[in-house]
Amino acid sequence: MSVTDEYLKNNETYVAGFPGELPLPPARKTAVVACMDARVNPYGALGLKEGDSHVIRNAGGVVTDDTIRSLAISQHLLGTEEIVLIHHTDCGMVTFTDEQFADILEKEAGERPSWSANAFPDLEGDVRDSIKRITDSPFVKNKGSVRGFVLDVATGKLNEVE
Amino acid sequence: MSVTDEYLKNNETYVAGFPGELPLPPARKTAVVACMDARVNPYGALGLKEGDSHVIRNAGGVVTDDTIRSLAISQHLLGTEEIVLIHHTDCGMVTFTDEQFADILEKEAGERPSWSANAFPDLEGDVRDSIKRITDSPFVKNKGSVRGFVLDVATGKLNEVE
Repeated sequence: MSVTDEYLKNNETYVAGFPGELPLPPARKTAVVACMDARVNPYGALGLKEGDSHVIRNAGGVVTDDTIRSLAISQHLLGTEEIVLIHHTDCGMVTFTDEQFADILEKEAGERPSWSANAFPDLEGDVRDSIKRITDSPFVKNKGSVRGFVLDVATGKLNEVE
Repeated sequence: MSVTDEYLKNNETYVAGFPGELPLPPARKTAVVACMDARVNPYGALGLKEGDSHVIRNAGGVVTDDTIRSLAISQHLLGTEEIVLIHHTDCGMVTFTDEQFADILEKEAGERPSWSANAFPDLEGDVRDSIKRITDSPFVKNKGSVRGFVLDVATGKLNEVE
């Protein structure tokens, strides 16, 4: 049985206890931007329930054009007002450079990507850069609460980056 | 108290019951690509636990260059092999066009974005397009299990798109 099939089996349990339909706009008017890392569970770490918050995730939890696209839709069309950024300790993105990853892809895939891997050397520095990319964007309209955190994967604790 | 502060309060409960450190590579060797929608909870819907799977999310759950970037890092550096795509019923992305969203941003933000909103008129069609963008990419190396689903937000059920 593939893992995907096991996940579908788990879905049957979820459906049996599903609370029912909820409104499309996030009830808590928040958007979370987090790293895709398997150990970072925004539902557990923030106590999110279905319907509370948009959750945007990618490698690193970095703020790319695609993140801005998602935040613009979140705020302009669905009324969210606060943004919570989550990076985490022991992140793979600090272990290689964009150039090294392009070299790996050239070797394994036969070509270099047109995009950058968006690796970063400094965790807290990238949280600050990510906040700045959001506050600098004309397409994010609610900038009153854009806060960034590093989740400690050993304890689950969110530590704010000032 | 802001919602972000309430989420931080919830984090204290999470830390108190945190299971402890886990390895960086996803234990179940899977990556999930899902819409950012607040009602779509991949942890509940798939029975994911911390450490199981990468989770990549954006507006629509569409496969952009940033999604390919994340999947390339997931597969080439962290050994994932299966991909699970999740769109959902009642999705906002079918309610407007890219042109209409650019018009909204021009009016509200004073300029049009360089990126497209990536709206789509047909839910199942976009799941198939997203699968194709993955299977067409040279940067995704494991294509043996790339399956797409529509989550029914009224029931929580995942329905596979064939």
